[in-house]
Amino acid sequence: MEKLTVIKVGGKIVEEEATLVQLLEGFSKIEGRKVLVHGGGRSATAMATRLGIESQMVNGRRITDAETLKVVTMVYAGLVNKNIVARLQSMDVNALGLTGADLNYMRSDKRPVKDVDYGFVGDVKEVNADLLADLIHKGVVPVLAPLTHDKKGNMLNTNADTIAGEAAKALTKHFDVTLVYCFEKKGVLMNENDDDSVIPEITRPMFEKYVADGIIQGGMIPKLENSFEAINAGVSRVVITKADQLSEGCGTTIHK
Amino acid sequence: MEKLTVIKVGGKIVEEEATLVQLLEGFSKIEGRKVLVHGGGRSATAMATRLGIESQMVNGRRITDAETLKVVTMVYAGLVNKNIVARLQSMDVNALGLTGADLNYMRSDKRPVKDVDYGFVGDVKEVNADLLADLIHKGVVPVLAPLTHDKKGNMLNTNADTIAGEAAKALTKHFDVTLVYCFEKKGVLMNENDDDSVIPEITRPMFEKYVADGIIQGGMIPKLENSFEAINAGVSRVVITKADQLSEGCGTTIHK
Repeated sequence: MEKLTVIKVGGKIVEEEATLVQLLEGFSKIEGRKVLVHGGGRSATAMATRLGIESQMVNGRRITDAETLKVVTMVYAGLVNKNIVARLQSMDVNALGLTGADLNYMRSDKRPVKDVDYGFVGDVKEVNADLLADLIHKGVVPVLAPLTHDKKGNMLNTNADTIAGEAAKALTKHFDVTLVYCFEKKGVLMNENDDDSVIPEITRPMFEKYVADGIIQGGMIPKLENSFEAINAGVSRVVITKADQLSEGCGTTIHK
Repeated sequence: MEKLTVIKVGGKIVEEEATLVQLLEGFSKIEGRKVLVHGGGRSATAMATRLGIESQMVNGRRITDAETLKVVTMVYAGLVNKNIVARLQSMDVNALGLTGADLNYMRSDKRPVKDVDYGFVGDVKEVNADLLADLIHKGVVPVLAPLTHDKKGNMLNTNADTIAGEAAKALTKHFDVTLVYCFEKKGVLMNENDDDSVIPEITRPMFEKYVADGIIQGGMIPKLENSFEAINAGVSRVVITKADQLSEGCGTTIHK
Protein backbone atom coordinates (compact mmCIF):
# COMPACT_ATOMS: atom_id res chain seq x y z
CA MET A 1 0.00 0.00 0.00
CA GLU A 2 1.15 3.49 -0.82
CA LYS A 3 2.19 5.65 2.15
CA LEU A 4 0.18 8.72 3.12
CA THR A 5 0.92 11.38 5.74
CA VAL A 6 -2.02 13.30 7.25
CA ILE A 7 -0.75 16.41 9.02
CA LYS A 8 -2.76 18.60 11.34
CA VAL A 9 -1.49 22.08 12.07
CA GLY A 10 -3.42 24.53 14.19
CA GLY A 11 -2.73 27.63 16.19
CA LYS A 12 -1.23 30.86 15.08
CA ILE A 13 1.36 29.18 12.86
CA VAL A 14 -1.22 28.88 10.02
CA GLU A 15 -2.54 32.38 10.59
CA GLU A 16 0.59 34.52 10.44
CA GLU A 17 2.24 35.06 7.07
CA ALA A 18 5.86 34.44 8.10
CA THR A 19 5.29 31.22 10.05
CA LEU A 20 2.76 29.94 7.50
CA VAL A 21 5.20 30.24 4.60
CA GLN A 22 7.88 28.43 6.63
CA LEU A 23 5.39 25.70 7.57
CA LEU A 24 4.24 25.20 3.99
CA GLU A 25 7.80 25.07 2.72
CA GLY A 26 8.45 22.26 5.22
CA PHE A 27 5.19 20.57 4.24
CA SER A 28 5.97 20.82 0.52
CA LYS A 29 9.23 18.91 1.10
CA ILE A 30 7.55 15.91 2.76
CA GLU A 31 7.86 13.04 0.35
CA GLY A 32 4.96 10.97 -0.91
CA ARG A 33 1.21 11.43 -0.67
CA LYS A 34 -0.05 13.88 1.92
CA VAL A 35 -3.05 15.72 3.37
CA LEU A 36 -3.00 18.96 5.37
CA VAL A 37 -5.62 19.75 8.02
CA HIS A 38 -5.72 23.28 9.40
CA GLY A 39 -7.40 25.29 12.12
CA GLY A 40 -8.02 29.01 12.13
CA GLY A 41 -9.55 29.86 15.50
CA ARG A 42 -7.58 33.05 16.09
CA SER A 43 -8.59 34.49 12.71
CA ALA A 44 -12.22 33.53 13.37
CA THR A 45 -12.17 35.25 16.75
CA ALA A 46 -10.55 38.36 15.23
CA MET A 47 -13.11 38.49 12.40
CA ALA A 48 -16.01 37.96 14.82
CA THR A 49 -14.72 40.86 16.92
CA ARG A 50 -14.50 43.13 13.85
CA LEU A 51 -18.09 42.21 13.04
CA GLY A 52 -19.24 42.87 16.59
CA ILE A 53 -20.00 39.20 17.28
CA GLU A 54 -18.95 37.97 20.71
CA SER A 55 -16.91 34.73 20.77
CA GLN A 56 -18.07 32.41 23.52
CA MET A 57 -15.82 29.52 24.51
CA VAL A 58 -16.66 26.63 26.85
CA ASN A 59 -13.81 24.23 27.77
CA GLY A 60 -11.79 25.62 24.87
CA ARG A 61 -14.61 24.90 22.39
CA ARG A 62 -16.36 27.65 20.46
CA ILE A 63 -20.11 28.10 20.91
CA THR A 64 -21.26 28.37 17.30
CA ASP A 65 -24.51 30.28 16.88
CA ALA A 66 -25.89 31.09 13.40
CA GLU A 67 -23.84 34.29 13.03
CA THR A 68 -20.67 32.61 14.30
CA LEU A 69 -21.21 29.75 11.84
CA LYS A 70 -21.14 32.30 9.00
CA VAL A 71 -17.91 33.75 10.38
CA VAL A 72 -16.13 30.38 10.71
CA THR A 73 -17.36 29.32 7.26
CA MET A 74 -15.94 32.52 5.75
CA VAL A 75 -12.70 32.40 7.68
CA TYR A 76 -11.91 28.66 7.63
CA ALA A 77 -13.18 27.73 4.14
CA GLY A 78 -12.46 31.11 2.54
CA LEU A 79 -9.65 33.12 4.04
CA VAL A 80 -7.40 30.54 5.74
CA ASN A 81 -8.03 27.61 3.38
CA LYS A 82 -7.58 29.51 0.12
CA ASN A 83 -4.51 31.33 1.40
CA ILE A 84 -2.93 27.93 2.13
CA VAL A 85 -4.09 26.44 -1.19
CA ALA A 86 -2.78 29.39 -3.25
CA ARG A 87 0.57 29.30 -1.45
CA LEU A 88 0.96 25.54 -1.90
CA GLN A 89 0.19 25.92 -5.61
CA SER A 90 3.02 28.47 -5.82
CA MET A 91 5.28 25.68 -4.44
CA ASP A 92 4.04 23.26 -7.12
CA VAL A 93 1.91 21.30 -4.64
CA ASN A 94 -1.42 20.54 -6.33
CA ALA A 95 -3.61 21.51 -3.37
CA LEU A 96 -7.39 21.18 -3.20
CA GLY A 97 -9.23 22.93 -0.38
CA LEU A 98 -12.17 21.03 1.06
CA THR A 99 -14.84 21.20 3.73
CA GLY A 100 -16.80 18.10 4.67
CA ALA A 101 -19.60 19.28 2.37
CA ASP A 102 -17.32 19.16 -0.69
CA LEU A 103 -17.62 15.70 -2.27
CA ASN A 104 -19.73 14.90 0.83
CA TYR A 105 -16.47 13.59 2.24
CA MET A 106 -17.35 14.13 5.92
CA ARG A 107 -20.88 14.19 7.33
CA SER A 108 -21.73 15.11 10.91
CA ASP A 109 -24.68 15.34 13.20
CA LYS A 110 -25.26 18.59 15.03
CA ARG A 111 -24.09 17.93 18.57
CA PRO A 112 -27.04 17.16 20.86
CA VAL A 113 -27.63 19.67 23.66
CA LYS A 114 -26.67 18.22 27.05
CA ASP A 115 -25.10 20.50 29.67
CA VAL A 116 -23.94 22.93 27.01
CA ASP A 117 -25.55 24.00 23.72
CA TYR A 118 -22.54 24.21 21.42
CA GLY A 119 -24.77 25.35 18.54
CA PHE A 120 -23.74 24.46 14.98
CA VAL A 121 -20.99 22.05 15.97
CA GLY A 122 -20.69 18.68 14.27
CA ASP A 123 -19.94 15.21 15.63
CA VAL A 124 -18.56 13.18 12.72
CA LYS A 125 -20.79 10.30 11.59
CA GLU A 126 -19.60 9.25 8.14
CA VAL A 127 -16.45 9.67 6.06
CA ASN A 128 -16.55 8.97 2.31
CA ALA A 129 -12.91 8.73 1.38
CA ASP A 130 -13.08 6.98 -2.01
CA LEU A 131 -13.05 10.10 -4.22
CA LEU A 132 -10.51 11.68 -1.90
CA ALA A 133 -8.27 8.61 -2.23
CA ASP A 134 -8.62 8.71 -6.04
CA LEU A 135 -7.48 12.33 -6.08
CA ILE A 136 -4.57 11.65 -3.72
CA HIS A 137 -3.43 8.78 -5.97
CA LYS A 138 -3.38 11.31 -8.82
CA GLY A 139 -1.04 13.62 -6.88
CA VAL A 140 -3.62 15.96 -5.40
CA VAL A 141 -2.98 17.22 -1.84
CA PRO A 142 -6.26 17.82 0.01
CA VAL A 143 -6.25 20.79 2.40
CA LEU A 144 -9.01 20.19 4.93
CA ALA A 145 -10.78 23.05 6.71
CA PRO A 146 -12.33 22.35 10.14
CA LEU A 147 -15.90 22.25 8.82
CA THR A 148 -18.29 19.40 8.08
CA HIS A 149 -21.94 19.36 6.98
CA ASP A 150 -25.12 17.59 8.05
CA LYS A 151 -26.30 16.69 4.50
CA LYS A 152 -29.42 18.69 5.28
CA GLY A 153 -27.97 21.89 3.88
CA ASN A 154 -26.03 23.15 6.90
CA MET A 155 -22.33 23.53 7.50
CA LEU A 156 -21.11 22.50 10.97
CA ASN A 157 -18.07 23.71 12.88
CA THR A 158 -15.81 20.73 13.66
CA ASN A 159 -12.60 20.42 15.64
CA ALA A 160 -9.54 20.17 13.37
CA ASP A 161 -7.96 17.34 15.45
CA THR A 162 -11.16 15.35 14.94
CA ILE A 163 -11.15 16.04 11.18
CA ALA A 164 -7.53 14.85 10.98
CA GLY A 165 -8.22 11.70 13.01
CA GLU A 166 -11.38 10.77 11.12
CA ALA A 167 -9.84 11.44 7.69
CA ALA A 168 -6.74 9.41 8.63
CA LYS A 169 -8.84 6.45 9.83
CA ALA A 170 -11.03 6.43 6.70
CA LEU A 171 -7.99 6.64 4.40
CA THR A 172 -6.44 3.49 5.93
CA LYS A 173 -8.68 1.58 3.47
CA HIS A 174 -6.52 3.01 0.67
CA PHE A 175 -3.14 3.91 2.21
CA ASP A 176 -0.55 3.07 4.86
CA VAL A 177 -1.33 6.15 6.97
CA THR A 178 0.86 8.20 9.30
CA LEU A 179 -1.04 10.84 11.27
CA VAL A 180 0.99 13.84 12.46
CA TYR A 181 -0.24 16.30 15.08
CA CYS A 182 1.83 19.48 15.22
CA PHE A 183 1.84 21.36 18.46
CA GLU A 184 4.01 23.86 20.32
CA LYS A 185 6.50 21.34 21.79
CA LYS A 186 8.97 19.10 19.96
CA GLY A 187 7.07 15.99 21.09
CA VAL A 188 5.95 14.23 24.26
CA LEU A 189 8.49 15.26 26.90
CA MET A 190 10.13 13.11 29.59
CA ASN A 191 10.58 16.29 31.63
CA GLU A 192 8.13 19.09 30.97
CA ASN A 193 10.75 21.70 31.86
CA ASP A 194 13.24 20.37 29.30
CA ASP A 195 12.07 21.00 25.74
CA ASP A 196 14.71 18.63 24.39
CA SER A 197 13.66 15.64 26.51
CA VAL A 198 11.50 14.22 23.71
CA ILE A 199 10.41 10.58 24.14
CA PRO A 200 11.13 9.17 20.65
CA GLU A 201 8.52 6.39 20.71
CA ILE A 202 5.61 5.28 22.82
CA THR A 203 3.68 2.02 22.70
CA ARG A 204 0.52 1.27 24.71
CA PRO A 205 2.40 -0.52 27.58
CA MET A 206 4.96 2.33 27.71
CA PHE A 207 2.13 4.88 27.77
CA GLU A 208 0.48 3.13 30.71
CA LYS A 209 3.76 3.02 32.62
CA TYR A 210 4.49 6.71 31.92
CA VAL A 211 1.02 7.66 33.18
CA ALA A 212 1.44 5.49 36.31
CA ASP A 213 4.82 7.15 36.95
CA GLY A 214 3.35 10.65 36.50
CA ILE A 215 5.62 11.43 33.52
CA ILE A 216 2.70 11.81 31.12
CA GLN A 217 -0.12 13.86 32.61
CA GLY A 218 -2.79 16.52 32.00
CA GLY A 219 -3.87 17.33 28.46
CA MET A 220 -1.32 14.94 27.00
CA ILE A 221 -3.32 11.92 28.27
CA PRO A 222 -6.43 12.45 26.07
CA LYS A 223 -4.13 13.37 23.13
CA LEU A 224 -2.38 10.01 23.45
CA GLU A 225 -5.64 8.14 24.08
CA ASN A 226 -6.89 9.59 20.77
CA SER A 227 -3.65 8.53 19.10
CA PHE A 228 -4.06 4.93 20.27
CA GLU A 229 -7.68 5.01 19.16
CA ALA A 230 -6.51 5.99 15.65
CA ILE A 231 -3.93 3.19 15.73
CA ASN A 232 -6.58 0.67 16.79
CA ALA A 233 -8.65 1.88 13.81
CA GLY A 234 -5.85 1.07 11.37
CA VAL A 235 -3.58 4.12 11.31
CA SER A 236 0.01 2.80 11.25
CA ARG A 237 1.56 5.45 13.46
CA VAL A 238 0.81 8.82 15.04
CA VAL A 239 3.56 11.42 15.35
CA ILE A 240 3.44 14.35 17.78
CA THR A 241 5.92 17.03 16.77
CA LYS A 242 6.61 20.72 16.35
CA ALA A 243 5.46 22.31 13.10
CA ASP A 244 8.87 23.73 12.21
CA GLN A 245 10.38 20.24 12.35
CA LEU A 246 7.83 18.71 10.00
CA SER A 247 10.22 17.64 7.28
CA GLU A 248 12.89 16.35 9.68
CA GLY A 249 11.17 13.27 11.06
CA CYS A 250 11.59 14.35 14.72
CA GLY A 251 9.04 14.17 17.51
CA THR A 252 7.34 11.33 19.34
CA THR A 253 6.07 8.35 17.37
CA ILE A 254 3.13 6.45 18.83
CA HIS A 255 2.64 2.94 17.51
CA LYS A 256 1.31 -0.48 18.44
CA MET B 1 -19.07 12.70 -26.27
CA GLU B 2 -20.97 13.02 -23.04
CA LYS B 3 -23.08 16.18 -22.66
CA LEU B 4 -22.19 18.80 -20.06
CA THR B 5 -24.07 21.94 -19.03
CA VAL B 6 -22.11 24.84 -17.52
CA ILE B 7 -24.50 27.26 -15.82
CA LYS B 8 -23.61 30.72 -14.60
CA VAL B 9 -25.92 32.37 -12.11
CA GLY B 10 -25.17 35.74 -10.59
CA GLY B 11 -27.02 38.53 -8.90
CA LYS B 12 -29.15 38.41 -5.83
CA ILE B 13 -30.73 35.07 -6.76
CA VAL B 14 -27.73 33.19 -5.27
CA GLU B 15 -27.56 35.44 -2.23
CA GLU B 16 -31.09 35.28 -0.84
CA GLU B 17 -32.19 32.07 0.86
CA ALA B 18 -35.61 31.71 -0.79
CA THR B 19 -34.51 32.31 -4.38
CA LEU B 20 -31.31 30.29 -3.91
CA VAL B 21 -33.20 27.19 -2.77
CA GLN B 22 -35.58 27.51 -5.74
CA LEU B 23 -32.64 27.95 -8.11
CA LEU B 24 -30.78 24.94 -6.72
CA GLU B 25 -33.89 22.78 -6.91
CA GLY B 26 -34.14 23.69 -10.61
CA PHE B 27 -30.43 23.07 -11.06
CA SER B 28 -30.58 19.69 -9.32
CA LYS B 29 -33.23 18.54 -11.83
CA ILE B 30 -31.10 19.27 -14.90
CA GLU B 31 -30.16 15.94 -16.38
CA GLY B 32 -26.64 14.83 -17.11
CA ARG B 33 -23.26 16.27 -16.17
CA LYS B 34 -23.20 19.86 -14.96
CA VAL B 35 -21.15 22.69 -13.48
CA LEU B 36 -22.45 25.70 -11.55
CA VAL B 37 -20.66 29.07 -11.59
CA HIS B 38 -21.80 31.68 -9.11
CA GLY B 39 -21.24 35.35 -8.27
CA GLY B 40 -21.69 36.99 -4.91
CA GLY B 41 -21.07 40.69 -5.41
CA ARG B 42 -23.94 41.92 -3.23
CA SER B 43 -22.79 39.80 -0.27
CA ALA B 44 -19.22 41.02 -0.76
CA THR B 45 -20.35 44.64 -0.79
CA ALA B 46 -22.48 44.07 2.33
CA MET B 47 -19.60 42.36 4.17
CA ALA B 48 -17.14 45.09 3.13
CA THR B 49 -19.54 47.70 4.50
CA ARG B 50 -19.85 45.84 7.81
CA LEU B 51 -16.05 45.76 8.02
CA GLY B 52 -15.78 49.47 7.20
CA ILE B 53 -14.15 48.83 3.81
CA GLU B 54 -15.39 51.05 1.01
CA SER B 55 -16.44 49.26 -2.21
CA GLN B 56 -15.17 51.08 -5.27
CA MET B 57 -16.66 50.18 -8.64
CA VAL B 58 -15.47 51.33 -12.09
CA ASN B 59 -17.63 50.38 -15.10
CA GLY B 60 -19.43 47.83 -12.94
CA ARG B 61 -16.13 46.18 -11.96
CA ARG B 62 -14.91 46.06 -8.37
CA ILE B 63 -11.58 47.68 -7.52
CA THR B 64 -9.93 44.94 -5.46
CA ASP B 65 -7.32 46.24 -3.03
CA ALA B 66 -5.64 43.90 -0.52
CA GLU B 67 -8.40 44.27 2.09
CA THR B 68 -11.15 43.82 -0.51
CA LEU B 69 -9.40 40.69 -1.80
CA LYS B 70 -9.68 39.19 1.69
CA VAL B 71 -13.38 40.07 1.77
CA VAL B 72 -14.17 38.54 -1.63
CA THR B 73 -12.11 35.43 -0.80
CA MET B 74 -14.08 34.98 2.43
CA VAL B 75 -17.45 35.71 0.89
CA TYR B 76 -17.14 33.98 -2.51
CA ALA B 77 -15.07 30.91 -1.52
CA GLY B 78 -16.40 30.66 2.03
CA LEU B 79 -19.89 31.96 2.61
CA VAL B 80 -21.58 31.81 -0.80
CA ASN B 81 -19.76 28.77 -2.20
CA LYS B 82 -20.14 26.53 0.86
CA ASN B 83 -23.77 27.52 1.35
CA ILE B 84 -24.44 26.37 -2.24
CA VAL B 85 -22.36 23.20 -1.85
CA ALA B 86 -24.04 22.19 1.42
CA ARG B 87 -27.51 22.80 -0.05
CA LEU B 88 -26.74 20.82 -3.20
CA GLN B 89 -25.47 17.93 -1.07
CA SER B 90 -28.82 17.96 0.76
CA MET B 91 -30.42 17.45 -2.70
CA ASP B 92 -28.10 14.50 -3.40
CA VAL B 93 -25.98 16.50 -5.85
CA ASN B 94 -22.33 15.64 -5.18
CA ALA B 95 -21.05 19.22 -5.27
CA LEU B 96 -17.41 20.29 -4.97
CA GLY B 97 -16.66 23.97 -4.39
CA LEU B 98 -13.60 25.30 -6.19
CA THR B 99 -11.61 28.45 -6.77
CA GLY B 100 -9.05 28.60 -9.57
CA ALA B 101 -6.32 27.83 -7.00
CA ASP B 102 -7.90 24.46 -6.14
CA LEU B 103 -6.39 21.80 -8.39
CA ASN B 104 -4.72 24.79 -10.12
CA TYR B 105 -7.67 24.59 -12.47
CA MET B 106 -7.64 28.28 -13.51
CA ARG B 107 -4.58 30.51 -13.47
CA SER B 108 -4.66 34.25 -14.11
CA ASP B 109 -2.32 37.17 -14.42
CA LYS B 110 -3.01 40.22 -12.30
CA ARG B 111 -4.56 42.73 -14.68
CA PRO B 112 -1.96 45.27 -15.85
CA VAL B 113 -2.61 48.86 -14.82
CA LYS B 114 -3.69 51.00 -17.77
CA ASP B 115 -6.28 53.75 -17.25
CA VAL B 116 -7.59 52.05 -14.12
CA ASP B 117 -5.79 50.04 -11.43
CA TYR B 118 -8.28 47.25 -10.74
CA GLY B 119 -5.99 45.83 -8.04
CA PHE B 120 -6.07 42.08 -7.40
CA VAL B 121 -8.16 41.21 -10.44
CA GLY B 122 -7.22 38.31 -12.70
CA ASP B 123 -7.20 37.93 -16.47
CA VAL B 124 -7.42 34.20 -17.18
CA LYS B 125 -4.31 32.69 -18.80
CA GLU B 126 -4.54 28.91 -18.37
CA VAL B 127 -7.27 26.39 -17.63
CA ASN B 128 -6.32 22.85 -16.53
CA ALA B 129 -9.52 20.93 -16.99
CA ASP B 130 -8.29 17.31 -16.95
CA LEU B 131 -8.79 16.60 -13.22
CA LEU B 132 -12.04 18.56 -13.33
CA ALA B 133 -13.25 16.43 -16.26
CA ASP B 134 -12.29 13.23 -14.40
CA LEU B 135 -14.36 14.30 -11.41
CA ILE B 136 -17.32 15.28 -13.59
CA HIS B 137 -17.22 11.87 -15.29
CA LYS B 138 -17.48 10.35 -11.78
CA GLY B 139 -20.66 12.31 -11.06
CA VAL B 140 -19.13 15.26 -9.21
CA VAL B 141 -20.72 18.69 -9.82
CA PRO B 142 -18.11 21.47 -9.56
CA VAL B 143 -19.37 24.73 -8.04
CA LEU B 144 -17.02 27.47 -9.22
CA ALA B 145 -16.47 30.65 -7.20
CA PRO B 146 -15.42 33.82 -9.09
CA LEU B 147 -11.79 33.61 -7.95
CA THR B 148 -8.60 32.51 -9.70
CA HIS B 149 -4.96 32.55 -8.60
CA ASP B 150 -1.64 33.68 -10.07
CA LYS B 151 0.33 30.54 -9.06
CA LYS B 152 2.60 32.88 -7.11
CA GLY B 153 0.56 32.50 -3.92
CA ASN B 154 -2.15 35.10 -4.52
CA MET B 155 -5.85 34.75 -5.10
CA LEU B 156 -7.32 37.05 -7.77
CA ASN B 157 -10.86 38.36 -8.11
CA THR B 158 -12.28 37.23 -11.46
CA ASN B 159 -15.58 37.93 -13.20
CA ALA B 160 -18.00 34.99 -12.95
CA ASP B 161 -19.06 35.27 -16.63
CA THR B 162 -15.40 34.92 -17.58
CA ILE B 163 -14.94 31.90 -15.29
CA ALA B 164 -17.98 30.25 -16.88
CA GLY B 165 -16.81 30.97 -20.43
CA GLU B 166 -13.23 29.83 -19.84
CA ALA B 167 -14.28 26.66 -17.98
CA ALA B 168 -16.80 25.82 -20.72
CA LYS B 169 -14.21 26.28 -23.47
CA ALA B 170 -11.58 24.15 -21.70
CA LEU B 171 -14.11 21.38 -21.02
CA THR B 172 -14.96 21.02 -24.74
CA LYS B 173 -11.89 18.74 -24.91
CA HIS B 174 -13.84 16.26 -22.77
CA PHE B 175 -17.55 17.02 -23.29
CA ASP B 176 -20.22 18.30 -25.66
CA VAL B 177 -20.72 21.58 -23.78
CA THR B 178 -23.76 23.82 -23.41
CA LEU B 179 -23.05 27.12 -21.67
CA VAL B 180 -26.00 28.78 -19.93
CA TYR B 181 -26.00 32.39 -18.75
CA CYS B 182 -28.86 33.18 -16.39
CA PHE B 183 -29.93 36.77 -16.19
CA GLU B 184 -33.00 38.79 -15.23
CA LYS B 185 -34.91 38.39 -18.54
CA LYS B 186 -36.31 35.21 -20.11
CA GLY B 187 -33.85 35.50 -23.01
CA VAL B 188 -32.84 37.88 -25.78
CA LEU B 189 -35.98 39.88 -26.51
CA MET B 190 -37.39 40.93 -29.90
CA ASN B 191 -39.05 43.86 -28.12
CA GLU B 192 -37.43 45.07 -24.92
CA ASN B 193 -40.81 46.16 -23.56
CA ASP B 194 -42.32 42.69 -23.98
CA ASP B 195 -40.77 40.15 -21.61
CA ASP B 196 -42.37 37.30 -23.54
CA SER B 197 -40.89 38.26 -26.94
CA VAL B 198 -37.96 35.85 -26.53
CA ILE B 199 -36.01 35.08 -29.71
CA PRO B 200 -35.69 31.26 -29.49
CA GLU B 201 -32.45 30.96 -31.49
CA ILE B 202 -29.77 33.18 -32.91
CA THR B 203 -27.02 32.32 -35.37
CA ARG B 204 -24.16 34.65 -36.39
CA PRO B 205 -25.94 35.93 -39.57
CA MET B 206 -29.18 36.46 -37.59
CA PHE B 207 -27.22 38.31 -34.89
CA GLU B 208 -25.67 40.65 -37.44
CA LYS B 209 -29.07 41.37 -38.98
CA TYR B 210 -30.69 42.01 -35.56
CA VAL B 211 -27.90 44.44 -34.68
CA ALA B 212 -28.22 46.23 -38.05
CA ASP B 213 -31.99 46.49 -37.50
CA GLY B 214 -31.50 47.89 -33.98
CA ILE B 215 -33.36 44.95 -32.36
CA ILE B 216 -30.28 43.83 -30.41
CA GLN B 217 -28.44 46.73 -28.80
CA GLY B 218 -26.57 47.99 -25.73
CA GLY B 219 -25.17 45.50 -23.23
CA MET B 220 -26.65 42.56 -25.13
CA ILE B 221 -24.15 43.04 -27.97
CA PRO B 222 -20.97 42.18 -25.95
CA LYS B 223 -22.90 39.33 -24.23
CA LEU B 224 -23.66 37.81 -27.64
CA GLU B 225 -20.16 38.54 -28.98
CA ASN B 226 -18.80 36.54 -26.00
CA SER B 227 -21.28 33.77 -26.75
CA PHE B 228 -20.09 33.48 -30.37
CA GLU B 229 -16.50 33.55 -29.15
CA ALA B 230 -17.28 30.53 -26.90
CA ILE B 231 -18.94 28.79 -29.85
CA ASN B 232 -15.93 29.45 -32.08
CA ALA B 233 -13.78 27.90 -29.32
CA GLY B 234 -15.79 24.66 -29.42
CA VAL B 235 -18.78 25.20 -27.11
CA SER B 236 -21.79 23.62 -28.87
CA ARG B 237 -24.38 26.20 -27.84
CA VAL B 238 -24.89 29.11 -25.47
CA VAL B 239 -28.27 29.65 -23.82
CA ILE B 240 -29.38 32.95 -22.32
CA THR B 241 -32.29 32.44 -19.95
CA LYS B 242 -33.90 33.36 -16.65
CA ALA B 243 -32.70 31.44 -13.58
CA ASP B 244 -36.17 30.29 -12.53
CA GLN B 245 -36.65 28.61 -15.93
CA LEU B 246 -33.41 26.66 -15.74
CA SER B 247 -34.90 23.21 -15.89
CA GLU B 248 -37.48 24.05 -18.55
CA GLY B 249 -35.22 24.51 -21.57
CA CYS B 250 -36.54 28.01 -22.35
CA GLY B 251 -34.56 31.10 -23.34
CA THR B 252 -32.49 32.05 -26.35
CA THR B 253 -30.11 29.49 -27.84
CA ILE B 254 -27.07 30.84 -29.66
CA HIS B 255 -25.38 28.43 -32.04
CA LYS B 256 -23.32 28.28 -35.22
